[in-house]
Amino acid sequence: MNPVLNPKRTVAELKELRALTGDENGAQRVAFTPMWVKTRAWLLEKVAGLPLEIHNDAAGNTWFTLRGESEKCLLIGGHMDSVPNGGWLDGCLNVLAGVEILRRINTQYSGKPPVTVRVVDWADEEGARFGKSLFGSSACSGNLDMNEARGLIDKQGLRLPDALKNVGIDFERVKDSGKELKHAAAYLELHIEQGPVLLDLDLPLGAVLGTFGVERHAITFHGQAAHSGSTPMNRRKDAFLAAAKMSSEIYKIAERSGNGVCTIGSCTTKPGIVTSVVEECRITLDQRHLDAAKLATMLAEAKAAGEKFAKEGNVQISWERLWQIAPSPFNDELIALCDEAIGETCGKRHRLPSGPLHDAAEVAAAGVPTVMMFVQSLHGISHNKIEDTKEEHLELCVTAFDKLAEKAMVWIQKKS
Amino acid sequence: MNPVLNPKRTVAELKELRALTGDENGAQRVAFTPMWVKTRAWLLEKVAGLPLEIHNDAAGNTWFTLRGESEKCLLIGGHMDSVPNGGWLDGCLNVLAGVEILRRINTQYSGKPPVTVRVVDWADEEGARFGKSLFGSSACSGNLDMNEARGLIDKQGLRLPDALKNVGIDFERVKDSGKELKHAAAYLELHIEQGPVLLDLDLPLGAVLGTFGVERHAITFHGQAAHSGSTPMNRRKDAFLAAAKMSSEIYKIAERSGNGVCTIGSCTTKPGIVTSVVEECRITLDQRHLDAAKLATMLAEAKAAGEKFAKEGNVQISWERLWQIAPSPFNDELIALCDEAIGETCGKRHRLPSGPLHDAAEVAAAGVPTVMMFVQSLHGISHNKIEDTKEEHLELCVTAFDKLAEKAMVWIQKKS
Repeated sequence: MNPVLNPKRTVAELKELRALTGDENGAQRVAFTPMWVKTRAWLLEKVAGLPLEIHNDAAGNTWFTLRGESEKCLLIGGHMDSVPNGGWLDGCLNVLAGVEILRRINTQYSGKPPVTVRVVDWADEEGARFGKSLFGSSACSGNLDMNEARGLIDKQGLRLPDALKNVGIDFERVKDSGKELKHAAAYLELHIEQGPVLLDLDLPLGAVLGTFGVERHAITFHGQAAHSGSTPMNRRKDAFLAAAKMSSEIYKIAERSGNGVCTIGSCTTKPGIVTSVVEECRITLDQRHLDAAKLATMLAEAKAAGEKFAKEGNVQISWERLWQIAPSPFNDELIALCDEAIGETCGKRHRLPSGPLHDAAEVAAAGVPTVMMFVQSLHGISHNKIEDTKEEHLELCVTAFDKLAEKAMVWIQKKS
Repeated sequence: MNPVLNPKRTVAELKELRALTGDENGAQRVAFTPMWVKTRAWLLEKVAGLPLEIHNDAAGNTWFTLRGESEKCLLIGGHMDSVPNGGWLDGCLNVLAGVEILRRINTQYSGKPPVTVRVVDWADEEGARFGKSLFGSSACSGNLDMNEARGLIDKQGLRLPDALKNVGIDFERVKDSGKELKHAAAYLELHIEQGPVLLDLDLPLGAVLGTFGVERHAITFHGQAAHSGSTPMNRRKDAFLAAAKMSSEIYKIAERSGNGVCTIGSCTTKPGIVTSVVEECRITLDQRHLDAAKLATMLAEAKAAGEKFAKEGNVQISWERLWQIAPSPFNDELIALCDEAIGETCGKRHRLPSGPLHDAAEVAAAGVPTVMMFVQSLHGISHNKIEDTKEEHLELCVTAFDKLAEKAMVWIQKKS
């Protein structure tokens, strides 16, 4: 560990933040709310002693810049916002580790590192209020769908543009934030895993290969309602039977795909009464893979299976795409550096894909070489007040992430 | 056909009733409503010329009695009430065919048949308003659960006892209607099939073997919510996967049972969102069989399958009984007479069980020898404005049912 790095300070700051912005139900730092504004004010206090340029961009992302010899930038990203009743680490660990790294670099290089180092606090990563995640980073990457975002409404009926106006952001100009990426040479993001993979392997840290691409559909099977007592089994057009067959099938599809995952998250039935064969059954299917071709294969296999089950059951099937995003594989050289940093810190290495999306996917999509590091989640659970990570692992991740930052600075210089 | 029987009159009366009590959405003769009261007043007009004793019993069932030489009674039952937006034949065909048979017997025997003949219009067979079917007949049979019925509430918040009071019925005395069965020697009921069996076989009529016993349960699988992107397939406790496996299985269980039917009519999922593995999945299972032992086997097999799928998927399972009723096999000798009457009328015979429940099940449960006759339903559909039966089949069923009534009178005399 670099002698001036103080990972214990990061843990202490996380606890301070939890006391300030959480309650008995968990973290309450929902974006664009007074608690989120308070969180950001607290963050400004934490960096007060550093020689940073600080500003909010057009999308409300806050940038903390330590100017270096070169205008080429190493970016370190995270987000201070949380879901309602969220975990104490999700997002803010990333930012606070970044702040600790800024302190170390500032001290080690006497305020003038070889390349410019910037920490960014992305605005509204979670999308908890308006149902659209990665707001700030997708505005910055240019991928934000303006028409869709313009129409988003929160539970109180407030439109996203009006909510942004209340915190000083002009919705129509949010993509101006894209200029922040002008000299970006590498982007690093630390995050709790939010899954059980590292826990199962008993590993503290992992290098992330990229974020999964996602194909998300609603599938509706259309059969015929019929009396449960008077309709012989061989006369039925049972929409639930066809839909139910998809459940085992998606496990086979995921297995054939290698590392993909498939989830049927909801099922609704009409008329949905005990005395009638199901006329209409709607399920949602979420499929994810790091490899675009394999993701496409998983979808094609699901479609073929659906057709087959519909035909077997004499019912109709229709598909509706709810959402999709391409896989975002990270930079091979940065993955190797991340792996190296992890190996040097705790001796054991592991590479894994990320199921959940992160701001890193948007930055990678914008063409900036990107990598993420995961630290083990206890219980494998996130977006919940029981989200937690062992303190020794939190300290290890700050140390390893700092090593990665240093390696990335060297890498940026070499590439120049 | 008996020369004084006029089945065409029955068809004409059914059409008249449809015009009087239906609208563009179907029949609207819901029990205990003004339209139902109007329907019964219309029925009284139809029998005005006959020498009948007419009274309502303590449960609101209307009895039309033609006194015979013997006090032993032949009962013919039906119900004038319908579900909302119901079919034009369900229930009232039975009553109006009974009325036509009363006319024929009255003429043929000059007002004094060898046994007493009674038509009964059961009150609230459908249970559309209070969610509890066979009200009048279960009061009469003694099977009505008074505590349960006392607590029933309609959508407007009115309690069943208060609704009954409004039509002159004292809820606490409804079981006094049981005395109506004192001299009952046989009970006959004609009904549209409400299923597709006769339609598929291209047969107009069938003799009914009995009504199915029913086992009705809610089955809940308890798994664990987990992120759809970060949770490897082999780590999941997927409640939907376990529940979905039941769907194919119940078809196998029904097949092994011979003539049983099994239906999963509804499925709900929690949290029921696209990005989470299903934590809790609740399905309803309705199982029916004419044979009590085979019904018990079907339930036992479903329980074993549920346990197996829960274990395979590392989830928990719990069962809740929603309702059950024992099978009600009809009287063998009356079934044979019904079969005979059908054969004599249209040359082709068929025996089949009844999936739906009917008032006949209550009368049989009260120990009265019982049989039903089914007439083909077009589309195999009931409880719907498209419910229909060919006019020639309606006429045939009145003719055959009348033959059955005559045979039953002879049978009653012989048994005396």
